[in-house]
Amino acid sequence: MPRQHRRQFLLHSLGWSGTAWAAANLGPVKLWGQETSVQRASDIIPGKDPRLIVLESHPAVFETPRELLADHAQTPTEYLFVRNNQQPENTATLSPVSPRGWQVELAGLISKPQSFDAALLTELPTTSVDVVLQCSGNGRALFNAGAQTKGTQWGHGGMGCVQFEGVRLSDVLKHLQLDVNKDARFITAEGRDEALPGKEDFEHSLPVDEVLNRSLIALRMNGKDLPAVHGGPVRLVTPGVYATMHFKWLSKITFTAEESRNHHHATRYRMPRQRIKPGEDFKANLENSRFNWRMNVKSVVLDPAPGGKLKAGSTTIRGVAFNDGSAPIDLVLVSTDRGQTWQKAKVEKAAGRFAWYPWSFETNLAAGEQVIWSRAVDALGRSQPSNGSIRWNPEGYEWNGVEPVTVMVS
Amino acid sequence: MPRQHRRQFLLHSLGWSGTAWAAANLGPVKLWGQETSVQRASDIIPGKDPRLIVLESHPAVFETPRELLADHAQTPTEYLFVRNNQQPENTATLSPVSPRGWQVELAGLISKPQSFDAALLTELPTTSVDVVLQCSGNGRALFNAGAQTKGTQWGHGGMGCVQFEGVRLSDVLKHLQLDVNKDARFITAEGRDEALPGKEDFEHSLPVDEVLNRSLIALRMNGKDLPAVHGGPVRLVTPGVYATMHFKWLSKITFTAEESRNHHHATRYRMPRQRIKPGEDFKANLENSRFNWRMNVKSVVLDPAPGGKLKAGSTTIRGVAFNDGSAPIDLVLVSTDRGQTWQKAKVEKAAGRFAWYPWSFETNLAAGEQVIWSRAVDALGRSQPSNGSIRWNPEGYEWNGVEPVTVMVS
Repeated sequence: MPRQHRRQFLLHSLGWSGTAWAAANLGPVKLWGQETSVQRASDIIPGKDPRLIVLESHPAVFETPRELLADHAQTPTEYLFVRNNQQPENTATLSPVSPRGWQVELAGLISKPQSFDAALLTELPTTSVDVVLQCSGNGRALFNAGAQTKGTQWGHGGMGCVQFEGVRLSDVLKHLQLDVNKDARFITAEGRDEALPGKEDFEHSLPVDEVLNRSLIALRMNGKDLPAVHGGPVRLVTPGVYATMHFKWLSKITFTAEESRNHHHATRYRMPRQRIKPGEDFKANLENSRFNWRMNVKSVVLDPAPGGKLKAGSTTIRGVAFNDGSAPIDLVLVSTDRGQTWQKAKVEKAAGRFAWYPWSFETNLAAGEQVIWSRAVDALGRSQPSNGSIRWNPEGYEWNGVEPVTVMVS
Repeated sequence: MPRQHRRQFLLHSLGWSGTAWAAANLGPVKLWGQETSVQRASDIIPGKDPRLIVLESHPAVFETPRELLADHAQTPTEYLFVRNNQQPENTATLSPVSPRGWQVELAGLISKPQSFDAALLTELPTTSVDVVLQCSGNGRALFNAGAQTKGTQWGHGGMGCVQFEGVRLSDVLKHLQLDVNKDARFITAEGRDEALPGKEDFEHSLPVDEVLNRSLIALRMNGKDLPAVHGGPVRLVTPGVYATMHFKWLSKITFTAEESRNHHHATRYRMPRQRIKPGEDFKANLENSRFNWRMNVKSVVLDPAPGGKLKAGSTTIRGVAFNDGSAPIDLVLVSTDRGQTWQKAKVEKAAGRFAWYPWSFETNLAAGEQVIWSRAVDALGRSQPSNGSIRWNPEGYEWNGVEPVTVMVS
């Protein structure tokens, strides 16, 4: 049974409870009558929490159980999810990488194409920003209520909220006295990671105006030098967008007039421009789709997790809400009667406009099976679909539906 | 006192009650101590309801009071708002215009530029569609809570829901055996109306793919030949978009690679691409703005109207909700406690995906001043901003905020 199907089976049978899965994940487990060896995240990448859900071991793909996310407005690095399509050698570690000698090439439609040593960045003024880092496939497993999706079957734990510190890309260009040609509409970024055997190397195109406006070349995360597994020594971070667009091990930025035709950019990590029916076939290309970019408005119930067991009476429901940072989260509504009545949750301040907003809601739950729904609305009036499968796509990107979180109250 | 300021003064002093204004509108009224003659809508355009609010008399601009909208899922033609920037002679009438001899020119990037007689349309298969017809300035007066806007100070009555019948533009092209060049990205449409003295003639560009997909050349409205004042004999109707893009007295369609640089298209009827602060200056152009197109998700409380007087106890609140037709309206939430609690209204079926959804909500209102809020959410999760002024723009286009409807209960 392939790992992703095994996981899905477990998720369904366990009511998607992160806790139960993590418990099942500590060493060899009996599955389908066979003993299977499952490595712990902390064995694969020392320093990562052993309770992380191991979706793949190489390159490492780890998901954070909800309860680990619930207790921290800023996600500690040891809890942060990991998702690498490909990665350089010796990067399965939380150790930092020295920026000295790490060359970053600037090419394409600029006045003076050149390379610079990343150590230069340590001499320039830095800025820090708290961002939600979220895989564009986060929540992919929830699309399966519509029809089966392809790819790693993430629950909700392909996300976290971290602080990056680094130098604005626009400041680097200014320091190097580089001008961007006005025909440049995109930058195409790539990292020092290399393609898996038989695959094309990974790169993406990002809109140049937004990148010059707010992207950082990050050197630090959560107050420490950027760990190798999260892209150290330098990662291109653009607040508000899906994490696939945050370039680890940054090695090259090319200023271009057109979007890259690279396989990973032109046919993967893209959303159909038209709605498609769940289960329908769809082959993405540059015309019929757009790349994963600004994050949809979303709220997630973190505590209790689905399948959780609660005592009847007063309960605090906790979660987070976020969007692309272009307007504040305005309200989070919670319903415990399947959408007939919605009440306003208490929303805390976020650590900046690209961070998430922790929220809590006090309620009384009666004994029996109860279903909790949450719905965020931002100041622009953007909210979440009641049925997230309306955005169904074969690769399950950009889930942001209202999730029914079923718990047992006794 | 210019008419728009006078209206605004009255709207404020009367709590924006359409009824009260309409009552004040029946003949000469005392205003600021002076007797002023105000014409009734039915005097300007015979057949229009005398209770319509006269915002301008020539070209006619009439607004529909909320209570007239509340009682009809399909807005009767005599109640329908009127907004003409410029109009041909002798069109201030509900009488129809014969299509015979009415030439419509097809030009630009097509295989065989030519004109056809609109009578041809009466021989081709027709289709009908129920659409919300809404001025892009509808609700403009509500932006003034942010800062004063320019232009006709519409309340909510610059909208209606009507049925159009006509021939698909794509079927006309097929019948004429015309091919559209693949470089055509827009159609630029114009009507037989002429520019006001010293002004530029009115035209707009529309995206060619959407127009070929769903636009009709309409001959009939609400089951009758299209009245002259509403664009008869032929109007280009594109369901789901603001009414400024529905071309009355259609005389010419030009297929083009670029958007028109006409004053009315390139600098008016446009939304800033970036948020601007209420009161800030903004000069729209083709780069910094986009034309009014797909309608924002919106709900409006029609009954009671603001300033209404109600008896305490059981009350039914009624309204409508709609969007651009790209997904159904999923729910309408109503709050009578200033947003702490929201309850699901009963939403009726719409007469098609581009029509509006009448909704009703039964509640008990206690004596005193009460405030009613409504919020629509569509199946894509698109909703309304709590504070509509987040979309403030100097010309007050595309209002869709949650409106506090204050009523007195005794």
